[in-house]
Amino acid sequence: MPLEKLTIIGAGLLGGSIGLAARARDLAKRVSALVRRPESVAECQALGIADEVTLDTAEAVGGADLVVLCTPISGMASLAKRILSHLKLDAVITDVGSTKRQVVTELTPLCAVANAHFVGSHPMAGSDQTGPSAARADLCDGAVCVVTPTDGTDAGALAMVNDFWADLGSQPVVMSADTHDRLVARCSHLPHLLASALTRRVLDPVYGEQQAQLCATGFRDMTRLAAGSPVMWRDIVGSNRNDILAAIDEFADELGQLRGMIAGDSPEAIETWLQQAKVERDNWNNSADAD
Amino acid sequence: MPLEKLTIIGAGLLGGSIGLAARARDLAKRVSALVRRPESVAECQALGIADEVTLDTAEAVGGADLVVLCTPISGMASLAKRILSHLKLDAVITDVGSTKRQVVTELTPLCAVANAHFVGSHPMAGSDQTGPSAARADLCDGAVCVVTPTDGTDAGALAMVNDFWADLGSQPVVMSADTHDRLVARCSHLPHLLASALTRRVLDPVYGEQQAQLCATGFRDMTRLAAGSPVMWRDIVGSNRNDILAAIDEFADELGQLRGMIAGDSPEAIETWLQQAKVERDNWNNSADAD
Repeated sequence: MPLEKLTIIGAGLLGGSIGLAARARDLAKRVSALVRRPESVAECQALGIADEVTLDTAEAVGGADLVVLCTPISGMASLAKRILSHLKLDAVITDVGSTKRQVVTELTPLCAVANAHFVGSHPMAGSDQTGPSAARADLCDGAVCVVTPTDGTDAGALAMVNDFWADLGSQPVVMSADTHDRLVARCSHLPHLLASALTRRVLDPVYGEQQAQLCATGFRDMTRLAAGSPVMWRDIVGSNRNDILAAIDEFADELGQLRGMIAGDSPEAIETWLQQAKVERDNWNNSADAD
Repeated sequence: MPLEKLTIIGAGLLGGSIGLAARARDLAKRVSALVRRPESVAECQALGIADEVTLDTAEAVGGADLVVLCTPISGMASLAKRILSHLKLDAVITDVGSTKRQVVTELTPLCAVANAHFVGSHPMAGSDQTGPSAARADLCDGAVCVVTPTDGTDAGALAMVNDFWADLGSQPVVMSADTHDRLVARCSHLPHLLASALTRRVLDPVYGEQQAQLCATGFRDMTRLAAGSPVMWRDIVGSNRNDILAAIDEFADELGQLRGMIAGDSPEAIETWLQQAKVERDNWNNSADAD
């Protein structure tokens, strides 16, 4: 059963890709997109991201069964306040933010007061490109999408959000916002910060031309994430500080153990350490390929 | 002017790729390959890695103008001792080892005593696959190849090695072995060890299934290097200990600075830190693309 109306708020890489996929898969009779800049209307219409693209909040969200917030996490609460009065009764709101505790804590009571239901989501798909022109109908294909209900989440709203992500081609995985934020601090936020730290040190101009010249494919892969949006990542770090600090400390501890083995000239211990990492990586990669 | 005879010792990913490229580009009238395991002879012959593939050291290196050592760095000195008595006068020996100080220090005097010339090389090309079946004629195309002469290196031998790598399609860059090892500790060895450390912590089974499930494309790229050969990387670490320790300390210092900004809740400082990394990464990537 398709939705009567799906509304995407913010048509960047993720919002645009969700719009394209929802239309390609007939998930809604109408897909509406709310954009902020006047020049985005024609661009998003030309890209086919929605049936209707508008600058008008009431027009965008009025009558929507499901609204997907695809804007930076720092502005989601004020955005929610702006749209709530235009929603129909029992509308369901979800989002695509990279951290969930802050958004779920802020938006759940706001939506409840307006007789709407908030259920947090985090589709784990991305690209090093941004903007609607980078949007692809298959961006979320096969990607895990974490869905983070609370104890009080309406069962029908949770089912709608789960079904939406599954119908879009992704794999919904349900867990609490706290669990999500702790796990992504380690497997997503920490890697991003390591990539930035590595870039800063190796490409510091004090090391000269030859240093940059010797950076090869390994370095390229290990620093790709550093090209991400500084504003988006500033917000992610700000909304998940304690879990990220814990992940940094854990990592520093691991690096310190390795440092001790190298300083102590322990080739066997180093080989075992490298071997265990290889086995874990190979196993993970094989199971990821099998999905 | 092609070489009369080129000998590849060890036909793995790099040795095999060099053989394929040398034959495709007619860099030598004959390409010979020395392999260790009897079953490799037919495999390497079928792959076209050399005109003649042999288990016999004297046959492999006799009459060669240029010998390229493509075996693990830990065994290069004993390998050199085995081949020296079979070399013709003024033969030139080079290698493809990932660190250069140890190999240059060990092999330069050994070769000089045998009236041969050693010039260290490090083609910065690789793959996450290994073995002759992964060899490709274009593996070194466009890759930087560091060449590390000493003050006493014969000018003709240096020119032969430089020309060989250039004719093979790579970009020779000359620097001292010390400079090479210091620079690659930062841009190659450190990234590898960070990938292994990240893998170990995030995929530690104590964190359960859900942690592995949330590892997405960013994690995949940031841990790809951890799948490399533990034995090869144990040797690299062992042959470049002091430079790697310095690189780890530098990185830990950078991560500590970031930790301070996060603990102090300084969004502006974090954004500036991320922004500087992005600018450096984007500039490097653009100049790498332009090559």
